[in-house]
Amino acid sequence: MKILFKNARILTMKDENIINGDLVVKDNLIAYIGKDSSSYAPFDRVIDCQGNLLMPGFKNAHAHSAMVFLRGKADDVSLQDWLFNVVFPREDHLIGKDIYYLNKVAYLEYISSGITACFDHYYYPLEGAKAAEEMGMRTLLLATFDQKYTRGEALYKNYHYFNDQKDGLVRYIIGFHAEYTTDDSLLKGTQETLDLLKCPFFTHIAETKKEVEECLTRHHKTPAQYMYDEGLFKYGGGGFHCVYLTKEEVKIFKENNLSIISCPASNLKLASGIAPLTYFYEQGINIALGTDGPASNNSLNMFKEMYLAATLQKVMNNDPRSIPAFEILKMATVNGAKVMGLDKADVLDVNKYADLIMIDLSKPNMQPVNNIITNLVYAGSKDNVKLTMINGRILYEDGKFFLNESVEQIYQKAEETTSRLEKEL
Amino acid sequence: MKILFKNARILTMKDENIINGDLVVKDNLIAYIGKDSSSYAPFDRVIDCQGNLLMPGFKNAHAHSAMVFLRGKADDVSLQDWLFNVVFPREDHLIGKDIYYLNKVAYLEYISSGITACFDHYYYPLEGAKAAEEMGMRTLLLATFDQKYTRGEALYKNYHYFNDQKDGLVRYIIGFHAEYTTDDSLLKGTQETLDLLKCPFFTHIAETKKEVEECLTRHHKTPAQYMYDEGLFKYGGGGFHCVYLTKEEVKIFKENNLSIISCPASNLKLASGIAPLTYFYEQGINIALGTDGPASNNSLNMFKEMYLAATLQKVMNNDPRSIPAFEILKMATVNGAKVMGLDKADVLDVNKYADLIMIDLSKPNMQPVNNIITNLVYAGSKDNVKLTMINGRILYEDGKFFLNESVEQIYQKAEETTSRLEKEL
Repeated sequence: MKILFKNARILTMKDENIINGDLVVKDNLIAYIGKDSSSYAPFDRVIDCQGNLLMPGFKNAHAHSAMVFLRGKADDVSLQDWLFNVVFPREDHLIGKDIYYLNKVAYLEYISSGITACFDHYYYPLEGAKAAEEMGMRTLLLATFDQKYTRGEALYKNYHYFNDQKDGLVRYIIGFHAEYTTDDSLLKGTQETLDLLKCPFFTHIAETKKEVEECLTRHHKTPAQYMYDEGLFKYGGGGFHCVYLTKEEVKIFKENNLSIISCPASNLKLASGIAPLTYFYEQGINIALGTDGPASNNSLNMFKEMYLAATLQKVMNNDPRSIPAFEILKMATVNGAKVMGLDKADVLDVNKYADLIMIDLSKPNMQPVNNIITNLVYAGSKDNVKLTMINGRILYEDGKFFLNESVEQIYQKAEETTSRLEKEL
Repeated sequence: MKILFKNARILTMKDENIINGDLVVKDNLIAYIGKDSSSYAPFDRVIDCQGNLLMPGFKNAHAHSAMVFLRGKADDVSLQDWLFNVVFPREDHLIGKDIYYLNKVAYLEYISSGITACFDHYYYPLEGAKAAEEMGMRTLLLATFDQKYTRGEALYKNYHYFNDQKDGLVRYIIGFHAEYTTDDSLLKGTQETLDLLKCPFFTHIAETKKEVEECLTRHHKTPAQYMYDEGLFKYGGGGFHCVYLTKEEVKIFKENNLSIISCPASNLKLASGIAPLTYFYEQGINIALGTDGPASNNSLNMFKEMYLAATLQKVMNNDPRSIPAFEILKMATVNGAKVMGLDKADVLDVNKYADLIMIDLSKPNMQPVNNIITNLVYAGSKDNVKLTMINGRILYEDGKFFLNESVEQIYQKAEETTSRLEKEL
């Protein structure tokens, strides 16, 4: 299968340059980027980009995809109400099949908003993996050894997924939810597994002030310091949120090449705080962006995360120069790929996976075309996503999905699941 | 011309209720909302909404539409650089016709993102009016008596536009840019005109700390206090931005029934600050939302403004309960209509102007349909706008514009203007 994208503007994300030319996809890889693709003819399909932009797809580096069933169920309430009266009681009734159905709704949102890979963290990761494989969504799943997470799926003995499927759509990585939900046996199991696999480790870190204070009470250490001292970051990894990292912890991140995955929309909506991304950036930390779950965001839209990541820093620092737009665009793409180990899906280049999106520059919010980079970050919207390709497959084009199943059926199953969870309360 | 919208969910915005039924538009007015529209047959067109949502269009209550030529021209720079090195030198070369061309690009963005009316404030308002009338955009234009603003268009003697066109698409209102750009003669002219017309007055107020400090130095009063004492608010009106109002000034706003038009995206991007909307809301002030100009935002998208208005308050107050979603939705619709004197285009009701939008609930970000109100505010996106009708005319539907001119031509004229301004620097 060979597809030619012609008359494109191409932002490879290797640098800020925009190339005018062609891009050829052969099977699941990019075969050519340049001025003259004629030696690759014939093509199975030729797409005239008409000057629209090709760029790498967005990497959603922190998500709880299946939480779509909670979208709109717990807005404008206190964090305690949200967790204990809305989220937990419903989650108690989740079964594996629910995740399979619910994740697909999130994947539709990812695909239609230009997200080509997500780092997912929720119950029943094997069911999420099944949904991702069926739909063609590139996914990294956080595997935990807590019964509550795996519910007997015995993911532990399947750890080889991590290696075997390294080049596939779906892979696993090791982590747990957070320090405050981890007991000694889970900690020990995680340590052993990390040593066995020599695997990076990811978890929620310092999302709220309360979390940090409670960790100090329990361990007389801040969360990242505690986990570092426990050897969890021996093989790299990083933290989700990191709103309240101390300077000492940022130093640990820097020295151990750990990543910070920031979720600005969720942090605002739950009133968690605003992470000091400018400081992290100045320290040279790899910063990626995530949507968090739809229960706390409530959309899964990297344009929103980019705008917030950029502009919240400006107002926090009282300086509109804070963090240039291109750096923000890197957070939403290449830096996220680095977090997820997607070194073959980070930038647009020959022999990289064909995980790319086409941005419609003919929508009014992109006019005039003065500066494509800042237009993307400050004016971009998911309705600018004209096409989404993952692993060489066009899954979304001109507002339509190209999947092996109907969108209506996906919604219906998710509605049934949501209704059942309400009834079982 | 009679149009039937059938099988709709209808959010009139009179309250939070959602009606399942039909809506009939006759010419430029809503003729019927209810269960059985059969007595209004025959119809020129029947639109099956398939359960999608009809609601009032968004009211963009503060804009500098023509500044699209500056989109992407001045990002990530200091406010001083932005104003003195980018904005002002280019604005010096603007001619009337530029506004006519540039406004149309902004109107395309309004129409495609569900904005059915804008309160516009820029040079050459008569040229903006011409563009709005041609395109069918409902617009309130701020008329100023400064030569720099009107450039000899003698809008002053045309003040009767304000009255004569009260029910039309385009109307004028009195104001000036800000205290810090107003000299004695402009102040006096404005006072006289307000007394003559008994007209509400609008201006930028307390957008930045610097503005407040300088006003204190000049007049020993804060800006709103100064303008109130000068009699400018005798007939009502309000202020744009109001990031740094004092409690005494908020009291003036309350006692004189003045409105606050907040522009959260612009305030973030220019690092101006975060307006304390929760306090204004608790004091019972009418709060509306605006996009400000595309040079400082950079998009013209009320979904973004709603998300920011809602969630910035939560994080500022350290309380996720701050300002319920329905109140935010009111800010973006009915409260904006109140600001603009659009009492016939505020809610959906019989004999109101048919200024309405259809929201596509079948996009993944609206699924499952647990709560339409919070979905709109927290998960909504401009790609949910399926149809935009202003004054009974469908101007946008399913991604296509229905105008008397081509979109490509509008872009071309705007590009030519933008290029010319660069050359003339």
